[in-house]
Amino acid sequence: MSREINKDTQLCMSLSGRPGNFGTRFHNYLYQALDLNFVYKAFSTKDIEAAVKGVRALGIRGCAVSMPFKEACIPFLDELDPSATAIQSVNTIVNDDGFLRAYNTDYIAVAKLLDSYQVPRDAVFALRGSGGMGKAVVAAIRDAGFKKGYIIARNEVNGRALAEEYGYEWKAEVGDLPVDMVVNVTPIGMPGAAEAESLAFDKQVIDRASTVFDVVVAPGGTPLIRYGREQGKKIITGEEVAALQAVEQFVLYTGQRPSDELIEKAAAHARG
Amino acid sequence: MSREINKDTQLCMSLSGRPGNFGTRFHNYLYQALDLNFVYKAFSTKDIEAAVKGVRALGIRGCAVSMPFKEACIPFLDELDPSATAIQSVNTIVNDDGFLRAYNTDYIAVAKLLDSYQVPRDAVFALRGSGGMGKAVVAAIRDAGFKKGYIIARNEVNGRALAEEYGYEWKAEVGDLPVDMVVNVTPIGMPGAAEAESLAFDKQVIDRASTVFDVVVAPGGTPLIRYGREQGKKIITGEEVAALQAVEQFVLYTGQRPSDELIEKAAAHARG
Repeated sequence: MSREINKDTQLCMSLSGRPGNFGTRFHNYLYQALDLNFVYKAFSTKDIEAAVKGVRALGIRGCAVSMPFKEACIPFLDELDPSATAIQSVNTIVNDDGFLRAYNTDYIAVAKLLDSYQVPRDAVFALRGSGGMGKAVVAAIRDAGFKKGYIIARNEVNGRALAEEYGYEWKAEVGDLPVDMVVNVTPIGMPGAAEAESLAFDKQVIDRASTVFDVVVAPGGTPLIRYGREQGKKIITGEEVAALQAVEQFVLYTGQRPSDELIEKAAAHARG
Repeated sequence: MSREINKDTQLCMSLSGRPGNFGTRFHNYLYQALDLNFVYKAFSTKDIEAAVKGVRALGIRGCAVSMPFKEACIPFLDELDPSATAIQSVNTIVNDDGFLRAYNTDYIAVAKLLDSYQVPRDAVFALRGSGGMGKAVVAAIRDAGFKKGYIIARNEVNGRALAEEYGYEWKAEVGDLPVDMVVNVTPIGMPGAAEAESLAFDKQVIDRASTVFDVVVAPGGTPLIRYGREQGKKIITGEEVAALQAVEQFVLYTGQRPSDELIEKAAAHARG
């Protein structure tokens, strides 16, 4: 039986253009399992300034931030954690008595996954994408110590800018480059997207790599993840990024770190 | 088992200087009983402007407003219902796609109780109090058709202003005035207040009256209510006002009117 909401219950929330159910189900499941007096709910907004100021004024404890608000929210915050400063992109706001400190737990999650999967730091990577999430992933890769890599983007201006900002090279395509890790940070392979059935990299490129990393969340895996799995590659999935970044938010909001087993249950519940 | 919160769940809330549990428990009980995809939570704020703008920006469906925000919120709303216009005091905000329309359900509840208890309109009343809630009660009494009455207030300036605004007389004390209904809208008799054990009117005054109406909420009744009950008077209690005004909010937020039986259960749950 769930706790009854009372005057002391703390609200955490999300702000995104298209709210989903993952965060709401994930956090509420953990609150209940750990008997924490919290409740979580997803919101959207047409007025990011009033929404963020509302978070402060209402004492809402934490707020996840998704597209298209990750940069737009920054002017209304009080302080950026280094995880957000590095990429000027926020996905988490923590409210301490009206003081809003912001983090990027996508960055934190990617860094932790590169560690826990022990991806060798001399691996040469090819990362496809140049959007907001691309920045978080490239920054985490750079800060993890990967020396050599390529940003693959059809849009040369964005791709080159992202590559140069983090000390890598832009390429329009991978071609024959010697690549050990492929990383997809585009919507390719996302259920419902235009290229839902496509691989983000050519099969020959994937075949040469040891590690396949896709940030797209897809039940059963994206085509890239499924192909990499068939080929026996080391696999890092979008589900893992999504769950781990949500865990980091959970820890920031509540001060408690759930066990791995409980996190797995919460993520399965949230996906189901 | 309660519904699980999801992305479509609507939030209703309250804003007050000192949040209590009544509204939260009352509304959540009814949501569950009627299987509505809503959740309710109490908030306070130090910034009423940002809080109200946050209600709009986050698409929070409804917001109860208590002291000290009932007048302070008005500049940030889009429209006042006549129940709020009459007294320039708001206790309920309804958000329709970012358009904030405000009501005063205390006014509505008092009007309904004077009707349902069939208090004769030629009853002369004495109302003690001159605060924000006093205005809602006096306006409801006036609009219900009570022609003659007295505003009893130690503070002559406030008392006289309230009396004159609604066409009644100010008096410092009731004395020998012929009074059929006594109405308390001060904190006298409120548990924890300075005069928690006091009657708001002299016994001789109560003895001469037919109806005793106290807006103070107290378990088992205020001293005024208990004395009136002993003397066989017609009794209208603060619990009834609190529950009925909350029902009116519930109807405004959800479009559904619960049965009297269910309301009684919800109120009992909320008090317990």
